[in-house]
Amino acid sequence: MGVGVLGMEPQAKRLLVIGGGAAGMSAAAAARRRQPEAEIVVIERGPRVSFMLCGLPYFISDVVKDEESLVVYEAGYFRTERQIDVRTGCEVKGIDAQAHTVECIDVATREKEVLGYKKLVIAAGAQPILPGIRGLELGGVFALRTLDSAIAVKQFITRRPVKRAAIIGAGYIGLEMAEALTTAGALTTMIEASDTVLPMSEPEIGELIEEELRGHGVELLKRRLALSFEGASGTVDRVATDGGDVAAEMVLIAAGARPDSAVAREAGVALGEIGGIATDEMMRTNVADIYAAGDCVESRNVLTGKAIFLPLGTTANKQGRVAGDNAMGGRATFPGIMTTLAFKVFDLEVARTGLSHDQARSAGFTPVSAVIRFPSRSPFYPRAETLTVKLIADERSGRLLGAQMAGHGTVAKRIDVVAAALHAKMTVADLLQLDLTHAPPFANEWEGIQLAAQAIAHHRVRSASAPSTRPVR
Amino acid sequence: MGVGVLGMEPQAKRLLVIGGGAAGMSAAAAARRRQPEAEIVVIERGPRVSFMLCGLPYFISDVVKDEESLVVYEAGYFRTERQIDVRTGCEVKGIDAQAHTVECIDVATREKEVLGYKKLVIAAGAQPILPGIRGLELGGVFALRTLDSAIAVKQFITRRPVKRAAIIGAGYIGLEMAEALTTAGALTTMIEASDTVLPMSEPEIGELIEEELRGHGVELLKRRLALSFEGASGTVDRVATDGGDVAAEMVLIAAGARPDSAVAREAGVALGEIGGIATDEMMRTNVADIYAAGDCVESRNVLTGKAIFLPLGTTANKQGRVAGDNAMGGRATFPGIMTTLAFKVFDLEVARTGLSHDQARSAGFTPVSAVIRFPSRSPFYPRAETLTVKLIADERSGRLLGAQMAGHGTVAKRIDVVAAALHAKMTVADLLQLDLTHAPPFANEWEGIQLAAQAIAHHRVRSASAPSTRPVR
Repeated sequence: MGVGVLGMEPQAKRLLVIGGGAAGMSAAAAARRRQPEAEIVVIERGPRVSFMLCGLPYFISDVVKDEESLVVYEAGYFRTERQIDVRTGCEVKGIDAQAHTVECIDVATREKEVLGYKKLVIAAGAQPILPGIRGLELGGVFALRTLDSAIAVKQFITRRPVKRAAIIGAGYIGLEMAEALTTAGALTTMIEASDTVLPMSEPEIGELIEEELRGHGVELLKRRLALSFEGASGTVDRVATDGGDVAAEMVLIAAGARPDSAVAREAGVALGEIGGIATDEMMRTNVADIYAAGDCVESRNVLTGKAIFLPLGTTANKQGRVAGDNAMGGRATFPGIMTTLAFKVFDLEVARTGLSHDQARSAGFTPVSAVIRFPSRSPFYPRAETLTVKLIADERSGRLLGAQMAGHGTVAKRIDVVAAALHAKMTVADLLQLDLTHAPPFANEWEGIQLAAQAIAHHRVRSASAPSTRPVR
Repeated sequence: MGVGVLGMEPQAKRLLVIGGGAAGMSAAAAARRRQPEAEIVVIERGPRVSFMLCGLPYFISDVVKDEESLVVYEAGYFRTERQIDVRTGCEVKGIDAQAHTVECIDVATREKEVLGYKKLVIAAGAQPILPGIRGLELGGVFALRTLDSAIAVKQFITRRPVKRAAIIGAGYIGLEMAEALTTAGALTTMIEASDTVLPMSEPEIGELIEEELRGHGVELLKRRLALSFEGASGTVDRVATDGGDVAAEMVLIAAGARPDSAVAREAGVALGEIGGIATDEMMRTNVADIYAAGDCVESRNVLTGKAIFLPLGTTANKQGRVAGDNAMGGRATFPGIMTTLAFKVFDLEVARTGLSHDQARSAGFTPVSAVIRFPSRSPFYPRAETLTVKLIADERSGRLLGAQMAGHGTVAKRIDVVAAALHAKMTVADLLQLDLTHAPPFANEWEGIQLAAQAIAHHRVRSASAPSTRPVR
């Protein structure tokens, strides 16, 4: 009866975590909280764990001087304070799910090691998507992947001031980098294949972003395809595009990311429909004893029920916590994401949550939306700025579907209340009843989202007999 | 069959609104939206309507130079743009609910007029509570009631610089006024009868407020009762208290307010248990065709089901909108308030929503709470300030009950997400799942309220076998 237990190797009680980023370290910390005695090992390829990738644009612009500031906790903290065995410089080569082992090598010595596990959490992160075009190998062409790549960018622009820079992609990281490179002194051109900055942004929000770029001297080329990176003597000096050359002594590729799911797939872990590791709400994969979390996973969009890939630290932390807790016997769940996103480009705050008008229609809703301009503070209070919000709801049910906001004032934390409302499946009428904060220095008596909810509510009353899907303002 | 209609006087189709403040004008505007053709009359005692009382401290400190800035819309706007007949300088003397008439007088000419109504909205506002002590009539003793009283204060402190001022009461208006009078150059002493600033504040939040007061040279006397205002030659020069005299060339009374419900009561409108007009969720009083809204009404605390009086513009706007809409045939509801409140004292933002730990216990919950200090931005980002949040939940069910927050950063809009969570009856586990915004300039990856929710969740797991009501941190 007790033979199985007696025969177990020590490592067979071990929780092994692949990846020391936000998801992996959250998993390890959550596991430790639930099981004070468990053996927990984290394997990380790079030299650091618990590193805030979201800070890289600010490290490059020198708003953050020192890369060590971006480390939340040193590996030593986890080792001594949490009894978590953190092994940096250790790369995973393969997983044997049957044998419950992971093969890895020391990236410095190339020594091989096989580690057993009882439970495994895969938190391998993501890789930047590189365009399949000529010239990727040229000096001055970068993609932000790790701290090392950011250090390389910072060294490049520090050693010889870059007069002209190009950014491939106008998503939120491209936009943050436009600010960073402009701050570092480069005249910056953004090259974007689609007809909008920030995918899924509403036109009223996209316009504000474009205005902010123009105001800070950033050139935005939309519907433009980069064809190759060109340069003599091994260093880039221009980007060839389908609309002519763009001079650039430096190129930053910010064209999105893909889940780093190759090792998992080879081990028999099922991927989802868009290439990330598939998990259930408990962050379990299809393989016994293997969990996954963070940027290597695809999430569920709660509003559409569809798979989505949006690698963000907030999601990685939550998923890691759930995976680590459940690996130790917990019953936590991660229901999916609202695709909440916030960032700053120069002095403009931008945030969104939920579906855009077009996404809502594609998902089978009958969206109606309202755009409202409202003051960030009471209008009489100094520095009251005009903020813009677009609120999207389902016309038939009144259910809230999403919101987007931008302006020179507090925007991100204003969107959070909509994220909570979406989680609770609130209607426009519910939003009007929320008892939100007001005081002259922070907000006017009606919040912008509530003014937008009023506009939609009035529209729904008026059009009850003649439905329309046009924006009401 | 048609006789009743034929026999009706024109005024018998009229919506009459008593009071041109936030509630009254919201009611008039909502009524107009639903009934483009209705006759709508607003009677206001003062010279202005649609006036933001919340701006008075900033008018007194001269942050707002001009009192006209505090008017949201001029009376003329309502007359010409909304066809709302606004009658300022018109005081209500009585309501005849049977005859459907209101008797009022022109405050300038003392001429009497009787106005008929079909529907009546009472939005008469509130009056400051004055202590029943000697010396109220002295020069330099003020209570903030209307713009006129604020103009009197501003003139008083402008004509002869006030070296020492005293404030009776350390609620949020007292605290805002401490900032205003200090900004205006007065050495300010606050005299508070209870043992805390800000009623219902948690000790961890109250301490931050007191620290902010000390840092700006404001003296706070707690557990001190003002006994009389004293002064030679008709002007105050000190406040006599049960702990000795407090020198003050000016006294501001900020000891709370009471609903202005006298005229309503005389007309047979029922008051609630705490003296405000009682209404149902549709803002109907017990008398046919009479609605009430705003500071003259007592609200329901959604979390306790008990009556509460908290006169705020946000509530007044919502109640006014519901009353005006329903008076014209709508079916809007106002479910009550979460007692959400936000204000600034010097550089400290303070906000709360829901119940305090003690209130929760009194209401029959088994509260558990966590206090968390967290950064207002990512810690590596410039000017990341430490904010403090206390989150309160029910230990047995995990249901959220309230939150209080303070710090030198964005606080008010961070509390809104908890206000939404309370509205949706979310649990601690729900709060952990919310997809909230993060970007280095605005927030760290885990919001403070989510860190506090984690602390409570861990505590609930640990103490599942041995319940405790002690704060977990």
